[in-house]
Formats: sequence, structure tokens, C-alpha cells
Amino acid sequence: MPTSVPALVATSTTGPFEHGTVERRDLRPADVRIDIAYAGVCHSDIHTVRGEWGATEYPLTPGHEIAGIVSEVGEGVTRYAVGDRVGVGCFVDSCRECPECLAGEEQFCQKGVIYTYGTVGHDGVRTQGGYSQQIVVDEDYVVRIPDSLDLDVAAPLLCAGITLYSPLKRWKAGPGVRVGIVGMGGLGHMGVKIAHALGAHVTVLSQSLSKKDDGLRFGADEYVATSDAESMRPLRGSFDLIISTVSADIDLDRFLGLLGTGGALVFVGLPENPQQFSMFSLTSARRIIAGSNIGGIRETQEMLDFCAEHGIAAEIETIAASEVDGAWDRVVASDVRYRFVIDTATIGA
Amino acid sequence: MPTSVPALVATSTTGPFEHGTVERRDLRPADVRIDIAYAGVCHSDIHTVRGEWGATEYPLTPGHEIAGIVSEVGEGVTRYAVGDRVGVGCFVDSCRECPECLAGEEQFCQKGVIYTYGTVGHDGVRTQGGYSQQIVVDEDYVVRIPDSLDLDVAAPLLCAGITLYSPLKRWKAGPGVRVGIVGMGGLGHMGVKIAHALGAHVTVLSQSLSKKDDGLRFGADEYVATSDAESMRPLRGSFDLIISTVSADIDLDRFLGLLGTGGALVFVGLPENPQQFSMFSLTSARRIIAGSNIGGIRETQEMLDFCAEHGIAAEIETIAASEVDGAWDRVVASDVRYRFVIDTATIGA
Repeated sequence: MPTSVPALVATSTTGPFEHGTVERRDLRPADVRIDIAYAGVCHSDIHTVRGEWGATEYPLTPGHEIAGIVSEVGEGVTRYAVGDRVGVGCFVDSCRECPECLAGEEQFCQKGVIYTYGTVGHDGVRTQGGYSQQIVVDEDYVVRIPDSLDLDVAAPLLCAGITLYSPLKRWKAGPGVRVGIVGMGGLGHMGVKIAHALGAHVTVLSQSLSKKDDGLRFGADEYVATSDAESMRPLRGSFDLIISTVSADIDLDRFLGLLGTGGALVFVGLPENPQQFSMFSLTSARRIIAGSNIGGIRETQEMLDFCAEHGIAAEIETIAASEVDGAWDRVVASDVRYRFVIDTATIGA
Repeated sequence: MPTSVPALVATSTTGPFEHGTVERRDLRPADVRIDIAYAGVCHSDIHTVRGEWGATEYPLTPGHEIAGIVSEVGEGVTRYAVGDRVGVGCFVDSCRECPECLAGEEQFCQKGVIYTYGTVGHDGVRTQGGYSQQIVVDEDYVVRIPDSLDLDVAAPLLCAGITLYSPLKRWKAGPGVRVGIVGMGGLGHMGVKIAHALGAHVTVLSQSLSKKDDGLRFGADEYVATSDAESMRPLRGSFDLIISTVSADIDLDRFLGLLGTGGALVFVGLPENPQQFSMFSLTSARRIIAGSNIGGIRETQEMLDFCAEHGIAAEIETIAASEVDGAWDRVVASDVRYRFVIDTATIGA
């Protein structure tokens, strides 16, 4: 019989959250039951619940930055045991058979990945996310959180961390590589830390200098206000890789012009409107525009191990369940340094 | 004293060409004098002379697909001798010191490449191109045409050939790679031949099927009319690499949708207007939009050797100098199969 678990439940686009419950299935042989300790607040949660990415079915419990402790394992589970420190990210299942799944890029599953919340799974049940006290997930979609990472600061790595780690690795951030990070929010601050740990020369390109001290502390070598034309001018042609974490409209030609020959501008933020550019901005120096979207399970584990090895964690503000509605408004206002994490013990309290 | 050489000379945006002369400098130590046998007609010639890419200084002799025979060498020339079969492409000089020049990507020279026509060289003299009977070029910017390639069909390789070869190599066209070529003109037909010779599975994406027989003969495995929605539907997500050779506005999202995970849409054609796309088209499968622009000297030589080895040459219509004005109108109307080549012996005749 499914287990009723305390959860924050959205019942409409407008909120507020109700303290209710979600049902978690009985363990299948490969399942792991996780007592969730912390759940990060991702802007995607807000977009989804508020219907900004299409119609949403309610009730919905969002949350895909999940850190907790294994409390029970199915009879066929081989890699996790009760007491293990684990995480769950943006998805909890996929077809496991398509080339993408076989290549460890489950997020691009050809049959459609099953997201951690709001997707009807292969069993016909709509998934419910991490703003809750427990979740049941197939062990193949669970990752291990190294002992040296505290669970609260590890939670945001499951989305924000992998979202930056994957393109930084793919596009070869490393020693001698000049990396720009556009935006200094929940995503951007992880980009600075990871790119720095990879050995790249890191420049933050932020609207203002208001977070400059933080940026330098996180490992940035330079911090430039994009609104300051004087400071931007010498940067023309100076980057090998720029990762844009912003979801606002962007002057593509301006940012492409900051790239040297063969440089890549990679988007992990998702502007809603179509974006436009001059083809000359690409051909004149064989530049690249690319997109990236989280990462696969193997790569997410690699990222967690990398972060543990380099002492990297998210900068967080821990909040109680009762504070989530207000926290969401602050996320929308870009007023968070740098990720809210919900202490799930406070749900229902 | 400079040498006056018969040439086709444009004196205005509107034409027609005059049969006049251009001045060729006395040989410097590293210079090679080339008796031009054939000069290909590139759409760039037309854009430039007609002022479509910005203001043009007249008189101007265009032409950057040059094939001929060395007739004299400077005292310091080491790699060429009188009688050698050689080619000159889109540029004739660069700074030789910047990272791009040192990497053999002179076309992206940070100080500005000296194009074969219409650019003021380091000596203060404006360059004049290949619609003429002779040219003088530093040997570092001359390539060798293998004996097995006839000069007339080799000429278009110097621009059209390298324009396709470079991105096909960079983006790893080869066995097991599904390549789409958008457009079946002077550029596209070279793309089909080269991609096929590289071992890729080649699909032509053309507006209509009017050139289908040619496409299959050049090595295409499939040939699809982009206007035929029924035939296009099964191609969604099926390409690893698409090279767009068209300069008209393009529905980027439609072509991005044809790419599989990690696929790249590479532009060698240059639409005049800004182009727009939905960021979701990129992030949903970490797709790539990139630009490419001809190739460096080393790569151009590699391309010529590759073409010789694989029996690849341009499909041409040879024309007399008196026919160039009419030929240009046919290029603009896409009515050429597949490249016009001027027999320069007919200049002044």
C-alpha cells in the first residue's frame, strides 16, 4: 500500500502551498526509499507550478534538488544500503534502451525522460517531487553524495551544479581556457566555482558589480558589469567559452563578439522568446552557439565526486517550509544568495 | 616596374565588365608569378562588386578561385618552381604572427586577412583578383594543385571546395555520421561530393527535386525536397551534422529539429538578415549552431590533396570573359550547374 508522506502541495498557478501529503509507492525490487533532508528551490519549480512552461496538472509537489538518507531498499538493490547519503536530481526514470540512455545522457531519452515531478511515469502515475519528506526512486536514478559534502549544500548540486558542470566539461573548461559566466545567481555561482576548480580563467559577466566580492571569493579572476561599456570593450574576442545562465532576452551578437576564434556561447538559461543574431557573428570567427540541459546520471555522480574533491558546495539560505512562498518571490526578484534550500523536517510543522 | 595584365574590370555596382588591365607588382623574394588559366565565379564576387556587402572601391577585378601555372619565382622562393600547377584562394596575405595565423587559420587573422581582391595590402596597394591573366602572390599563400586535377575543375575548389571541406572535417563527417547538405548549388554540390568521400551518409535538403539525379550521382544517399512536409517528417532528429549553404533566410528551428542529440547546424552561407530561433531548440538536445568561413592555407592544401585522391572536382560550365556578365545573372538566379569558370585566355579577346 502506498505511503502518505508530508509534502508541500501546489494546487493552482497562484499558490500558496498547502501542507499536505503525496503518495509514495511500495518498493519495487530496484527501488530505494529516501528520507529527504533538504530540497533546493530551482527557478524551474516556479515556472512549472505557475504554468509558465505550459499547462500544469495539480496537485503538484515540485522539487528536483533532493538530498537525503536511504531508509529502505528493494530486494534487488545492489548499490545502496540503508543509511547511505544520496541525491536525486531532475529525473527519476527513462527508457534505458535508446542511444541517449545507453550513452548515459538519459536527460535526452528519445522516448522522453520521466522528470522528478509532473511527468506521468511508466506506471501511469504522475511523479511528485522533493518538497516532501520521502521519495521512492529506482536506484539507477539515484546518486551518492560523498561524505565530505553536507546534505544541505549538496542539494542544489543535483540541478544547479550539474547544469553548469556538464557544459563546462563538454566545452573543455580547464587551464588556459578563458571562461565567462553570464549571470551570478543560483546557476552562475556554481559555474564560477566549478570553472575555477577546473583551472579555467573565470570572468563573471553580471549586470552590476553588486555581487563582485562574492564572485571573487567563489574563484572568479575578473568580474565585469555588462552595463559598463568601458569595461566591456577590452573583452572583445577574449573568451573561449561563455556560459549564459540568464533566462532574459540576450543581445546575442554582443556576447558572440566577446568570443575568440572558435569560441562557444552555451545556454543553460532558457529565454522564453525567440532570440536573434547576425550570421556574420558566427562565420567571422567560426563561433558557436549551443545549448545544454542538466546532465546524465553518470555525469551527475562525477560532478558530485568532483565537488567533494574540490570542496565545492552551493551557497545557500536554508528555509522552513512555511517560508517557501516568500522565497519563491525572492527567487523571481533575483534576491537570493544563492540558492534556497528547504529543511523538509519543517513540512507540516 | 609593375606589369599591366589583361583583366575584367568592374567600374560600378551595375556593370558591365570592361576588358582592361590590372597592375601586378614586381616579384619580391618570396613571390610567385602565376599565369592564371581559370578563375571560378563565386557569389561573393557578385555581392562585393554590386556593393551588397558594403561600399566597394572601383575599379575592381574580382575572383578568388584561381588556378594556373607558375611563370616566375622570386629569389627566395623555396617551394614552387616555374611550371608548377598552383592555386590561389580567398586571401593572399595575413599578419603571420597572431595565434590564428600561427595555427594555420589565416582567414581569421586578428589583424585582418588580406583578401585576394578589394583589400588594401600591407604595401598600401589594393588587391585585385583572378578575373585576369596573371597574379603575383607570396608563396606562403599559394597552394599546389595535384597533377590528377585539371585546372578548370580545380579552380572552384579554392573557395567552394574549402568552404565545405573545412566544416565537414571539423565537425567530423565520416563513416556512421549522418550529414545533411542544405542547398545544391556551387557550395552544396561540393559538400555532397566531399561528405560522401569522407564516408558519411549524405542527404541533400533542397527546395525541390530538380537536381536529384545530379545529387545522387555526386554521392548523396538521399535527396529530399524541403518543401515536401511528408518527406521531411521522418527526418526529425536524424542528422548529426547539417551544413547550410544557402544565403536566404532560414527557419532555424525547423532545421535544428532535424538534428539528433548533440547535432550541429553549421552555416557557410551568409543570410543578410538577422536569423532567429527558440533556445529550446538548442537546449532540448544540446544542439549547436555554428559558422564556418573558408579554411587556412594548410587545410586548403589538404583539401586539394584529398580531392585528388578521391577523384573529386567541381562540376563546371566554362565560359569566355565576354559571357561573365550574363553568367552573373544566372548565378543570382541559381541557374548554373554548378560553377562557372572563366577561361582567362579570352580576356581582351
